[in-house]
Amino acid sequence: MDRFVNKYNMSLLTDFYELTMAQVYFEKNMNGNAVFNFFIRPTKNRNYFLNAGIELLIDYLLNVKFTEEDIDFLYKTGKFKDDFLDYLRYFRFSGNLYAVDEGEIVFANEPIIQIEAPIIEAQIVETFLINTIQISILVATKALRCYSVAKNTMLVDFGLRRAHGTDAGMIAARSSYIAGFVGTSNVLAGKVYGIPIYGTMAHSFIMAHDNEEEAFENFASVYPENTVFLVDTYDTINGVKNAVKVAKKLGIRIKGVRLDSGDILHLSKEARKILDENGFKDAIIFVSGGINEYKIKELMEKNAPVNGFGVGTELVTSADLPYLDCAYKLVEYDGKPAMKLSRKKITVPYKKQFYRIYRQGKIYKDIITHFDETVEDGVKMLNLYIENGRLVKKLPTLKEIRELTLINFEKLPQTFKSINQYMTLTPELSNRLIKATEELQHRLKKS
Amino acid sequence: MDRFVNKYNMSLLTDFYELTMAQVYFEKNMNGNAVFNFFIRPTKNRNYFLNAGIELLIDYLLNVKFTEEDIDFLYKTGKFKDDFLDYLRYFRFSGNLYAVDEGEIVFANEPIIQIEAPIIEAQIVETFLINTIQISILVATKALRCYSVAKNTMLVDFGLRRAHGTDAGMIAARSSYIAGFVGTSNVLAGKVYGIPIYGTMAHSFIMAHDNEEEAFENFASVYPENTVFLVDTYDTINGVKNAVKVAKKLGIRIKGVRLDSGDILHLSKEARKILDENGFKDAIIFVSGGINEYKIKELMEKNAPVNGFGVGTELVTSADLPYLDCAYKLVEYDGKPAMKLSRKKITVPYKKQFYRIYRQGKIYKDIITHFDETVEDGVKMLNLYIENGRLVKKLPTLKEIRELTLINFEKLPQTFKSINQYMTLTPELSNRLIKATEELQHRLKKS
Repeated sequence: MDRFVNKYNMSLLTDFYELTMAQVYFEKNMNGNAVFNFFIRPTKNRNYFLNAGIELLIDYLLNVKFTEEDIDFLYKTGKFKDDFLDYLRYFRFSGNLYAVDEGEIVFANEPIIQIEAPIIEAQIVETFLINTIQISILVATKALRCYSVAKNTMLVDFGLRRAHGTDAGMIAARSSYIAGFVGTSNVLAGKVYGIPIYGTMAHSFIMAHDNEEEAFENFASVYPENTVFLVDTYDTINGVKNAVKVAKKLGIRIKGVRLDSGDILHLSKEARKILDENGFKDAIIFVSGGINEYKIKELMEKNAPVNGFGVGTELVTSADLPYLDCAYKLVEYDGKPAMKLSRKKITVPYKKQFYRIYRQGKIYKDIITHFDETVEDGVKMLNLYIENGRLVKKLPTLKEIRELTLINFEKLPQTFKSINQYMTLTPELSNRLIKATEELQHRLKKS
Repeated sequence: MDRFVNKYNMSLLTDFYELTMAQVYFEKNMNGNAVFNFFIRPTKNRNYFLNAGIELLIDYLLNVKFTEEDIDFLYKTGKFKDDFLDYLRYFRFSGNLYAVDEGEIVFANEPIIQIEAPIIEAQIVETFLINTIQISILVATKALRCYSVAKNTMLVDFGLRRAHGTDAGMIAARSSYIAGFVGTSNVLAGKVYGIPIYGTMAHSFIMAHDNEEEAFENFASVYPENTVFLVDTYDTINGVKNAVKVAKKLGIRIKGVRLDSGDILHLSKEARKILDENGFKDAIIFVSGGINEYKIKELMEKNAPVNGFGVGTELVTSADLPYLDCAYKLVEYDGKPAMKLSRKKITVPYKKQFYRIYRQGKIYKDIITHFDETVEDGVKMLNLYIENGRLVKKLPTLKEIRELTLINFEKLPQTFKSINQYMTLTPELSNRLIKATEELQHRLKKS
């Protein structure tokens, strides 16, 4: 698969302090192994999260390096010494990446990613890691919420234009696809990721013609098998009638009509009636315009005859939760546990593993443990992807990840699937981890 | 200046329908000149917007083209014919770009960008245009709101890790800088845009050491002139005392301390006292952690002795307004006006100009006109940047844009500067434009 990320040199896409701290570690000969955990703190807006973006992170970790141009820029800041810049010249990620598979459902406070590497490396990769994983999970989760209420309708990512920049547009297409969407309007995502691409026509297309009928006829004569008529530019019902008129005139089938505004429940029923009465029973009704999981749910519950939704802005910006309270925390350095005491945000120290226990095919309990503990009947959730800087696990295709998501979603207890009520799973800590955490806390408070 | 965007081939970063519509236009020999307007619809969350991102758009328009690889991908979709793909081989943006200068303040419903080009070109560039301009304006506006209440404190963009992907991180650094921020933590933005870069140290740095004092000493011995001590890992007040202890031991000045949690009003006062009592009157107090314009305002009003803020997540995601209700609408095609009637979202047709009238140095009135109208004492707001595909206006440096912003901000009436109360300027339409709009509306309803 063609990879999107590594076409750019992202080594400097990092916070300045990562590099100044690195120089201090370098000068003080402090480059022992560090273990960092990436996790999400609880938020009432989400009962679960869909893990995503791991492949993009892997791609970065396998390719990150500093070019001479980068080194030159750092030199000119006047903040770095020659021997450290020499070190950066040969910088590679030589550590380990443990991660939950993409397409797995995760919960707050679970270590989704665990980096184990010389501390300079583990620190420099922090910024990109959070930058890429946060938006991947945000959109994947929002998309899965849409999927969870969409019944048998098809969902398409229409959000590229409203995503926060080009990279977010690419990630949104990728994350929504693995969360059960059938495709995207983003052509580049089609090329780079092989995601099916979809599109209809724009209002401007209708407006550029003298009238709607002429516009429909022009489009349908070029795409006789593939026209979804946008019917709401002037008057929706009249638009549906014009689509019928043009299809009959050209002797073609109507692939579908798109409603982008107005009272969708009412208009979709009227449109269905007109299409059916005229023998276009296969024509789909596709809906867009400010769609989110709440609107999909309402329309489905009211039996709106809608066959598909284009979900845009609210999906790609994760509008009701535009960021995660997530963190990448040091939990071990040089064999010693580490934790922060400030505020209520206490982190759990030690390199970890985490296990999932199923009962009757449903997720029953998650247990976070020391890395070397085992849990009977528990499925190991953190998998080793990169070992000593090398990829050691075959990456699934996006299609395989998508299938995994849909299987996993079946295993999520119904109570957690609500999009309105907060009901989540809180992972347990193993006894050994609880005891060790308390001991360290006690020790740090005394010191 | 090194440009960030044009290193990547963004031609396919477009919605699929832009290309299928293009093929229809191509086959039907419909490639007359089209005029599109980009504008923002009113939102109660913002009284004004800071225009930003125009240079990034220009960079794209001057460089967009389809590679053989792109053409090959499109061919394989089976949706495009050879003669159209041949057309795409030689595709360039050959039209005109009119835009409001970056660093100007704009209001809802104003045409911020006007594209005039053969309709295929004007349509294909739509997706990138909205994608890049929306996030640029969102962050610039949020940043200016922070600046508006920050008095003389320095503001630094700390948001890279929480931005939606890499491109958003770059745009956030750029947009916040031109809105009055002094710099960014994003090293790549320092290299690419020449924005000053800032950083302190992370909690992990403290935690990797046996104790805070040792961590401080290690950092300060490498950066004796430049250490901002992060003091809240274990106990903030004790952290400040440790910073003082280390500085005295090493015989260095304290550049500053950073507070990242807790009751900032109280802690900043305590920290100031300790620093002053120990002769570190020049040491700055820098605050981060969930900062936004509301928190800055509150701390400033209570006279918290804070010298600077690191603004992250809420800035780069524009958390209280994660997207703009913005649009790119066809207003003229082939010399004829165009407008949409559906919903309440009626657009104003015709190629436009827009003028700003000042009274006593303050923005008094904005008037949107036909392109060829003039307004006495009005300052023309739409400037021609690209003519027939060529750059015809010298682009300002980011520093110049930043200066322009700060001058323009002085011209904004005080009433509009509130971050809590909705009070905005509604642009007027010229009489000629009102009349012409009504006529067209009437004509379309009849037809």
